[in-house]
Amino acid sequence: MKFNRKPIPVSEAVNKVMEDKRYGGYEEIPLNQCENRVLAEDITATHPIPPFDKSPYDGFALRSEDTRIADRDNPITLKVIEEIGAGHRASRPIRSGEAVRIMTGAEIPEGADCVAMFEICQTHERDGENYMTIKRKMDKDQNIIQQGSETKEGEILVEKGVHINPGVKALLATFGYSTVKVGKKPLVGVFATGTELLEVDEALVPGKIRNSNAYMIEAQVRRSGGEVKYCGKLDDEFDTCFNAVKRALDEVDILITTGGVSVGDYDLMPDIYEKLGADVRFNKIAMRPGSVTTVAEHEGKLLFGLSGNPSACYVGFELFVYPIIQAYKGKANQFHKKIEATLGQDFPKPNPFTRFVRGFMHFQEGKVFVSPAGMDKSAVVTSLARTDVLIMLPGGTRGFEKGDKVEAILLEDYIGQASFE
Amino acid sequence: MKFNRKPIPVSEAVNKVMEDKRYGGYEEIPLNQCENRVLAEDITATHPIPPFDKSPYDGFALRSEDTRIADRDNPITLKVIEEIGAGHRASRPIRSGEAVRIMTGAEIPEGADCVAMFEICQTHERDGENYMTIKRKMDKDQNIIQQGSETKEGEILVEKGVHINPGVKALLATFGYSTVKVGKKPLVGVFATGTELLEVDEALVPGKIRNSNAYMIEAQVRRSGGEVKYCGKLDDEFDTCFNAVKRALDEVDILITTGGVSVGDYDLMPDIYEKLGADVRFNKIAMRPGSVTTVAEHEGKLLFGLSGNPSACYVGFELFVYPIIQAYKGKANQFHKKIEATLGQDFPKPNPFTRFVRGFMHFQEGKVFVSPAGMDKSAVVTSLARTDVLIMLPGGTRGFEKGDKVEAILLEDYIGQASFE
Repeated sequence: MKFNRKPIPVSEAVNKVMEDKRYGGYEEIPLNQCENRVLAEDITATHPIPPFDKSPYDGFALRSEDTRIADRDNPITLKVIEEIGAGHRASRPIRSGEAVRIMTGAEIPEGADCVAMFEICQTHERDGENYMTIKRKMDKDQNIIQQGSETKEGEILVEKGVHINPGVKALLATFGYSTVKVGKKPLVGVFATGTELLEVDEALVPGKIRNSNAYMIEAQVRRSGGEVKYCGKLDDEFDTCFNAVKRALDEVDILITTGGVSVGDYDLMPDIYEKLGADVRFNKIAMRPGSVTTVAEHEGKLLFGLSGNPSACYVGFELFVYPIIQAYKGKANQFHKKIEATLGQDFPKPNPFTRFVRGFMHFQEGKVFVSPAGMDKSAVVTSLARTDVLIMLPGGTRGFEKGDKVEAILLEDYIGQASFE
Repeated sequence: MKFNRKPIPVSEAVNKVMEDKRYGGYEEIPLNQCENRVLAEDITATHPIPPFDKSPYDGFALRSEDTRIADRDNPITLKVIEEIGAGHRASRPIRSGEAVRIMTGAEIPEGADCVAMFEICQTHERDGENYMTIKRKMDKDQNIIQQGSETKEGEILVEKGVHINPGVKALLATFGYSTVKVGKKPLVGVFATGTELLEVDEALVPGKIRNSNAYMIEAQVRRSGGEVKYCGKLDDEFDTCFNAVKRALDEVDILITTGGVSVGDYDLMPDIYEKLGADVRFNKIAMRPGSVTTVAEHEGKLLFGLSGNPSACYVGFELFVYPIIQAYKGKANQFHKKIEATLGQDFPKPNPFTRFVRGFMHFQEGKVFVSPAGMDKSAVVTSLARTDVLIMLPGGTRGFEKGDKVEAILLEDYIGQASFE
């Protein structure tokens, strides 16, 4: 072993990693490509909403004072001078005794101050002219959606740092953002290490297993909003390994290796960090799985040495790499959301260290439950398929029972939170 | 009006739409592109996991019977005949009196039946040979992960119809699926209708608003796992409109128009459905917003006429188009997950009809809350930005108070459920 392994608490490890976070800057992209990116500018109302007084119904726009004395016994008749649909405007202001037939969403003509719905009016024609009759008094501003009643011009509607969902995109369109400033995506390089690994299309041979971690990390990086470059499989020969890592570091923003950081004799990563001159921030964390997760920094870039064990690799990614990717993109809430939930199933195993159990969220009668996704042997890859939360069980506990209150980290939530705690 | 508008209940409308659902078939794609697709084949264990008896630790593989009489006063010494790392195999079976130095994940050599961790052994060299000493008795199968102990060969691990997340992808890699059969994505055409609409890059002029719905729907289609073709803006001229719709129907699997289905005089869609010979399944739903949502069927393809109002359009998409897209992709759970939650805020407005309020989910002390994302005026586009649930308030109610139990439809959940109810 080339370096001392002193386990540090999980939250300390997360904070240490975040000291090296880096914002990747922004780029301006077409509106139709902005989904799932992070806003790098505030969305400001470039005009009031609605931009003009408008009608919420199909009906007649008129002057309320013309109906002052209208009632069932005293119908008032107004001349319908024109008809305007949404997107059209009246050709002139209306005068006393006049009305305009108006469609939902259309601009209220000058002079009119209310809208009477079709349902309460009668219409007739006489000498080629149109008339409408109303038997009730209308109030000023009745059935008018006022300009700016929803949003004033200049108002900040969504602050930068937010994930772009369909609603945010609709707002961008409404206010004429045909291009959008969004945080750049980091390019994340991924190496798999270990001679026991076969590529996915290779036949299984005795003693070997297929490389699944690189594919899994690829999916995790994309789910986090990053881009991936699979750098291939590192073998156990030092110089080849070192050169490959060095070359990759020039090309990517963040580098992940999986495997090769255990205490096994064949672990080359410590020597590679040393020869690179990388500063190892920590190499052991008081947690299960993933205790051997290593994070090093080299010329402003982070190198994540995740365990070769699939579950440890998965957990290490979500705890340490995920927030670094969010920071790179400029997301305001860089961490996964953490909630309190009820354990849906016994977890009898004692936890000398903080344990992250892959689990899934379910709901019943207004309560949120989390249940382990499978047996929690750290090599069980199958349980990852159902995982959408990490159940966080504190160290120094003797197991948990169904119904206990636990904390859970949501992996598929876009809101997130501003700190790890 | 070209057709009768008879409002039908929401669940009846959903069921009617689903009668016309259509599976789009599957395609085989490379593993590294499969994220967020739907599995069109079961994932079967093509080999047991682990594929061989393996070591969970770094240590010595040996024959337990050799340690039968070992204790603190009676250390046993074995000859270390070789050393195997993960991915390597022993060159020959071990015999009595022998041990093999073995790394985590490596295959147990033939003849060995347990692993003693480094921590409990001493090593020494003599005459160029390596030896290890152990002071305690080992049991048969101790520290051995048995072949097939996690998964038997032939076991179905994930059934088709499931959304592919990072864990599912890891499983695919583990079992050698270098290509994956996934459900095809539907191509969804989107038209915006209405002369009041400007394109996003046009300057605002009096009486007009920008087209935001088409961009929003584009994002909703992609979030649902479909592909989008923006067909442009339809104007109010019938023949142009009709030809554009007819041409689009030849090119896409599902067609959405937004706007042009209200009771306004300028509504051309009913005439277009009629001239096409499309069968209008329904054109009015007892719900708010989105009551004028229209669904028609033409030669096996569905035409969705969503309201031009942004919120009504959003809700109409998630209730009716979303499950049709899931069915096309072959997803087993075609509907959004519906949960019971506690209302986090008063909603005093009476609900003569079923109302879908855009809201967001939050958690506290193990309970799940949903709160309206903004004032619920149906034209308020800004509230959509925070929306990740639709709060479903039953019709015939006089408003709800903070703390009331309500139902909520989750919009960003990948699990879903098999029926709308």
